[in-house]
Amino acid sequence: MGRGGRAVKLATLDDGTRDGRLIVVTRDLTRRVPADGITPTLQSALDAWATVAPALADLSDRLHAGAVKGEPFDEARALAPLPRAFQWADGAAYVNHVALVRPARGATLPESFWTDRLMYQGGSDTFLVLRAPNRLADEVWGIDFETEVAVITDDVPMGIARERVADHIKLIALVNDVSLRNLIPGELTKGFGFFYGKPSSAFTPVAVTPDELGPAWRDGKVHGPLLSFVNDQTFGRPDAGVDMTFDFATLIAHAARTRPLGAGTIIGSGTVSNRAADGGPGWSIAAGGLGYSCIAEQRMVETIQDGAAHTPFLRFGDRVRIEMRDAAGASVFGAIEQVVERYVGGGS
Amino acid sequence: MGRGGRAVKLATLDDGTRDGRLIVVTRDLTRRVPADGITPTLQSALDAWATVAPALADLSDRLHAGAVKGEPFDEARALAPLPRAFQWADGAAYVNHVALVRPARGATLPESFWTDRLMYQGGSDTFLVLRAPNRLADEVWGIDFETEVAVITDDVPMGIARERVADHIKLIALVNDVSLRNLIPGELTKGFGFFYGKPSSAFTPVAVTPDELGPAWRDGKVHGPLLSFVNDQTFGRPDAGVDMTFDFATLIAHAARTRPLGAGTIIGSGTVSNRAADGGPGWSIAAGGLGYSCIAEQRMVETIQDGAAHTPFLRFGDRVRIEMRDAAGASVFGAIEQVVERYVGGGS
Repeated sequence: MGRGGRAVKLATLDDGTRDGRLIVVTRDLTRRVPADGITPTLQSALDAWATVAPALADLSDRLHAGAVKGEPFDEARALAPLPRAFQWADGAAYVNHVALVRPARGATLPESFWTDRLMYQGGSDTFLVLRAPNRLADEVWGIDFETEVAVITDDVPMGIARERVADHIKLIALVNDVSLRNLIPGELTKGFGFFYGKPSSAFTPVAVTPDELGPAWRDGKVHGPLLSFVNDQTFGRPDAGVDMTFDFATLIAHAARTRPLGAGTIIGSGTVSNRAADGGPGWSIAAGGLGYSCIAEQRMVETIQDGAAHTPFLRFGDRVRIEMRDAAGASVFGAIEQVVERYVGGGS
Repeated sequence: MGRGGRAVKLATLDDGTRDGRLIVVTRDLTRRVPADGITPTLQSALDAWATVAPALADLSDRLHAGAVKGEPFDEARALAPLPRAFQWADGAAYVNHVALVRPARGATLPESFWTDRLMYQGGSDTFLVLRAPNRLADEVWGIDFETEVAVITDDVPMGIARERVADHIKLIALVNDVSLRNLIPGELTKGFGFFYGKPSSAFTPVAVTPDELGPAWRDGKVHGPLLSFVNDQTFGRPDAGVDMTFDFATLIAHAARTRPLGAGTIIGSGTVSNRAADGGPGWSIAAGGLGYSCIAEQRMVETIQDGAAHTPFLRFGDRVRIEMRDAAGASVFGAIEQVVERYVGGGS
C-alpha cells in the first residue's frame, strides 16, 4: 500500500479545549504537525473539506518529506478524532452478529434482517477520552465492548442514491461501541431503541482517508483483520471485509433516506463478525477460530455449545485494546486502549 | 411575569455560517444586539455558561434600558437557536400521548410506561432552517408534526440525582419533532428505535432562560397553553404543565444514568397531550376541546369515536405554526412556521 497523493492521517491533540487541535500525523504514527494554519479542528476541516483537504494533504507530504519537522506523536495525548460529533449512527452490517446476539436476550431474528438495513442513532456529545479509564457505575450492567469500523462523511444530501455515496466518505477510524448488555433487553422491549444501554463510545486516536488504506479499502468496506484484546489476550481477529452484509455506501444511503446528513456524521459498521467455514457461528480464539468482536457473541456460542456462557463480561480493572495492522504489521489507526473502572460520582 | 435579573432571550442570526451568530433579543422580540463581544455562538456560550451567562444578562439589561440601541429583530432571519447540536434526546413525558399513538400502529402500552421513563436518541446534525419549507420526498410517508417543549443543558455529570438537575437547565424553547407516521411502525418493529421515521426537527427562533418565564416555569415544567396551528386553524392548545407524567429533571436524570451529557444537550418533553376531564383522551378543537399537538392523536380519537380516522396527515402546501403566548398574549419564543413541500433531490 503506497501513500496515495491525497492520503492523510489526522488526529486531535488534547490542548485542554473541548474540540482539541487538529494535527496531521505521519503514516507510521511517529510524528505530527499542527494544522492550525489551515483549520483549527477536525469538525471545521469537515465543514469545508473540499478546500481544506488538499491543504492537509500538502502538509502531510511536507511532513513525510521532512520539509516540516513536526514533533513526536504520542497517541496517549490524542482525543477522539472528533471529541464530540453532531451525529453518530451505528449500523448492524454484520448480520451474523445480530443473529447471534438477539437470541441471547430472548429476541428473534426476522428473516428481513438479511436484506433490510438496521441502524440506531447513538449519543455523540461525549466520546471517551483516549487512554483515560472507561468509568461505569456497576459491573452488574454487563459491560461489553463492540469492535467496529466507522466512517466520517461530509454533507450528504437527503435521498442520495447508493451509487453516489462513495465520494462522501472522507475518513475512516475504529470504534468501541461500549454496550451494557444487562440494561439493553429491558430498554429495547420499550420500543424506542438504545439509550442508557449504550454509554459513551471510544474511537482510535487516528482517522485516515480512504486513500491511505490503499487496496484494503474496496467495495465500500475495510478489509483485513480487526484485532480485539482483553487483558492482552487476543479476543477476536475477524476480517472486517468478510461477512459485511451491507457496505458503507448502503448504510449511508439508508441513513440519508429522509434527511440530509451534516458534515462530520460518523457511521458505524456494527460489530464485526465472521461466520465459520460451515456458515455457522465462528469459533473462539481458544478453539482455533477468529474469535469475536464482543463478549456477548462468545457467550452466545458457549451457550449453544456448552449449554451455558462462562466468559464473564468486563470487570473493573479489565483492559480492552482494539486496533488494526497493515500487511507489514504497523498499526493503521493507533489503538483504543482503556481500562474499565468503577465510576463514583453523580455530583451537581 | 417580571424580568428576573438573569432573564435572557437568545437567538442565532443566519449569517451564512453553519452555526450562525449569537444575538440577545428583547423580551418583546422586537430588538436584537449581537453577542459577539462575549462569545460567537450559542454552543460556545453553553460551553462556558457560568462565565458567559452573566455577561449576556448584562447585555440584555443594557438593550432593554436603551443603553445599547440594537437593531430590529426579524424572526425570519433566525436559525434554530442551536442550528446543529451534539445531542437531541426526546422523552415521552406525556404518557397520554403514548397511550393514544401506540395502539394506532398496532403496538400495546405496557403498564410500566406510566412509571418508567421513555426516551429516544434523535438526530441533531441538521435542524431545519426557520421559515424555510420543510421538504420531504413523499406524502405517503404520513407527514406529521409533534409540538413539544425542549430544554438545553450545560454539562450534566453521569449518574446525577434528580434533585440536583434543576440548575443544569439553562434554556427553554419549543420544537416540532417532525414524524413520518407510516414509516415508524416497520422501523420500530426492528427494535432499534426511530431513524428515518424522524427526519430533521424544527425549533422556535428564540430560546429563553427559565427565569424569563417567571411563574410559568415551576416544578420542572413549563405551564401554559402550547399552540399548534395547521393552515391558520388552531389544532391544539393543551397546557404543557398538565399531564406531564415526568418533569424535565426526571427526564435529564434518566438520560444521564450511564453517561454524562455534554453542554448543549437538548432534551425534549415528547408530544404535549392533555386528557379530558373524565380521564379519557381529550377532545378536538372542533368538538370544543383543547385539541392535540400532532395529527396522529386526533386520528386515533376519531378512530375510537367514529371507527375511522378522517383528518389526513400533512400534504404538500400545508403550513404548521407552533408558539406559546404569555398572559398578555405576547409570543414567548417566537413561532415555528413552516410549509411542507415536496423534496426533489438526492444528487451527489
